[in-house]
Amino acid sequence: MSRIVKAASAQMGPIPKSQSRKQAVSRLVAMMREAKGRGAELVVFPELAFTTFFPRWMIEDEAELESYYETEMPGPETAPLFEESKKLGVGFYVSYAELVNEGGRRRRFNTSIIVDRNGEIVGKYRKVHLPGHSEPQPGRVHQHLEKRYFEPGNLGFGVWRAFGGVMGMCICNDRRWPETYRVMGLQGVEMIMLGYNTPFDHTGHADIDGLTSFHNHLSMQAGAYQNSTWVIGTAKCGKEEGSSMVGQSVIVAPSGEIVAMAATLEDEVITANCDLDIGKRYRQTIFDFARHREPEAYRLIVERKGAIAPPEN
Amino acid sequence: MSRIVKAASAQMGPIPKSQSRKQAVSRLVAMMREAKGRGAELVVFPELAFTTFFPRWMIEDEAELESYYETEMPGPETAPLFEESKKLGVGFYVSYAELVNEGGRRRRFNTSIIVDRNGEIVGKYRKVHLPGHSEPQPGRVHQHLEKRYFEPGNLGFGVWRAFGGVMGMCICNDRRWPETYRVMGLQGVEMIMLGYNTPFDHTGHADIDGLTSFHNHLSMQAGAYQNSTWVIGTAKCGKEEGSSMVGQSVIVAPSGEIVAMAATLEDEVITANCDLDIGKRYRQTIFDFARHREPEAYRLIVERKGAIAPPEN
Repeated sequence: MSRIVKAASAQMGPIPKSQSRKQAVSRLVAMMREAKGRGAELVVFPELAFTTFFPRWMIEDEAELESYYETEMPGPETAPLFEESKKLGVGFYVSYAELVNEGGRRRRFNTSIIVDRNGEIVGKYRKVHLPGHSEPQPGRVHQHLEKRYFEPGNLGFGVWRAFGGVMGMCICNDRRWPETYRVMGLQGVEMIMLGYNTPFDHTGHADIDGLTSFHNHLSMQAGAYQNSTWVIGTAKCGKEEGSSMVGQSVIVAPSGEIVAMAATLEDEVITANCDLDIGKRYRQTIFDFARHREPEAYRLIVERKGAIAPPEN
Repeated sequence: MSRIVKAASAQMGPIPKSQSRKQAVSRLVAMMREAKGRGAELVVFPELAFTTFFPRWMIEDEAELESYYETEMPGPETAPLFEESKKLGVGFYVSYAELVNEGGRRRRFNTSIIVDRNGEIVGKYRKVHLPGHSEPQPGRVHQHLEKRYFEPGNLGFGVWRAFGGVMGMCICNDRRWPETYRVMGLQGVEMIMLGYNTPFDHTGHADIDGLTSFHNHLSMQAGAYQNSTWVIGTAKCGKEEGSSMVGQSVIVAPSGEIVAMAATLEDEVITANCDLDIGKRYRQTIFDFARHREPEAYRLIVERKGAIAPPEN
C-alpha cells in the first residue's frame, strides 16, 4: 500500500453574508473537482466553510444566529459535497458551526470532520481553543465572539486511521498552541488538517497584527517539525464584509518546510504528494519520544491553566 | 525601573581538545569585556563552554572523562570569569559539565547557571532532554554520548527574578521541545537563555541534517512567540576536532522575530536592547493562558512518554 497521500488545500476567498450555503457548497464542489483533476484524493477546506465568518458580529436575534449553524451533517444543502466526494472518490476535511442537543441541552460547537473517499464521515473534532471574547469589545471595528457563540470542544484531540495513515485535525486558533500538535503526536499522527479564518486585526495591536502571516506559518511549521507530521492549513481569506483575512494556505512537510502555498486571496487549490514516511526518520532520531521525552518535568502543563510568575523580590 | 535588558549573545568558535580551561575562560572574559563596551549588562555563553564537546568521543578512561567536569563553580580556573563579572557589573549564563556527590553517589549533569551583576550565582538548571545515545553507534564518525555521560536533570524548568524580569534557562536539545518553553511560560518567563553545541551530522540522515540551521531557528522562534518571551540562543560552532557545528546564534523577540544574529563561525558578540514589556501585549491577547488554555485536553502530554498509534484496521 502506498504511503503517499495525494493531498490538496482548497483555499476560499470571502463568503459574503448574502451568499447562500448552496452557493458556498458549489464553490467547494468546483474546487474538489479541480483537486481531483490534479490527482488529489483528499481535500482540506477552511474553517466555517459554508457561511460568512459570523463571529465578527454581535448577533442578538437567536433565529438569525442559529441560521449559521448546521443541525445535521450532511444536511439538504451540504449533501452535494458528500455526493461529489463519493462520486469522485475524494475525501475531505471541512469545518462548520454545529448545533446539537446533547445531555438534554442545546449546545453549539465549532466543529470539523474528516470524510473518507466514500463520502462517509470517519472522524469528528470540536475546536478546543476558542479565541476572542464572550462580550463585545468597545472600540473594535470587528468583534471576535467565538467564546460567546461556541463552547470549548469536548472530544479532545483524536486521530483516525484513514487515507493509509494516521490522520488528525484541529481548527484555526488551535494551531498556535503547541499542546494541540503534541497530543496528536503522542498518538502517532502523520497528517494534521486544519482550516482557519484569521482577520488581520485579530488582537487589535498593530505590532502583533502586522505579523499575522509570519505567525500563521511559524506555528504550523513548528508543530509539523516537532511532531514529525504533515500539516495542511487552509484559509478562508481576503476581504469579507469589510474584514481582511490572511491567506497563504500551506502544505507543510514533517521537516517544517512549506512545500506548497497559495498565492492569491481567492478560491485556489494547491496540491502536494505527501509521503507519510518522511516523518519516520524524525520519529526515530531526534523526536523519538519514548527515548527523549521527560513527562515528569512537564507536569505544570496540565496542573496550571494561567501563568503565575514568582513573587517580586 | 527600566524594563529593558541590554543583552548579548557571546558565540564561541571551536575549542580544540588541546585548549586549556584557562584559555577558554580568557576567551569568555574577552567577549564579556566587548559586550560591556557595547552596553550589555547580561551575556549568554554557549553550552559546555569551558572545554571541547567531549560527548563526541567514547572515553573509557574514567580519569580522562572526569577531567571534562567541574567539581566546583566557580573553581580555580573558572573564577576569573566571576571576578570579571563583578568588576564589570555584567551578569551571565554559562553551561558546563557538573560532577557532584548527591544522595550518597557520584552524579553527572549537563548544567547551566545564571550569575547576577555581582558575580553571584542566582539560578541553576540541569539539562532535561539529553540527546544521543548511551552506547557508541557503529558507523558514526562522531558519537553523541550525552545519554552516557549525563543523567537527565532533576531540577525541573525553573525561573528566577533577575535583571529586572523573570529569567529562565535551558540547554541545547531542550530548545527543540515545546514543553521546555511552556513550563517556563506558565511561570511567567520573560527571557530564556540557552547555549548549544549542534553538529551538522547529529541525526546521521542527510535530509534532516541539511536543515539543521532552519530547525535551530524554527524551534527558538516558535518557543519565543508561543510563550511571549525573549529567547537568547548561543552556539559553540565551527569545525571542532573535525566536527562541524552550526552557528547562527540569535536574539529572538517575543514576536518570534530574530532581532540579532551572529554572522561568523567564530568568537562573536551580538547585542540587543530587549524590552521585556513587548511580551505583555501577547500575554494579554492571543496568549492569555488563563483565558485560552484548556489543560484537560492536554493530559496525554504527561500521561504518555512515547507515541502510541491507534491499532491498524
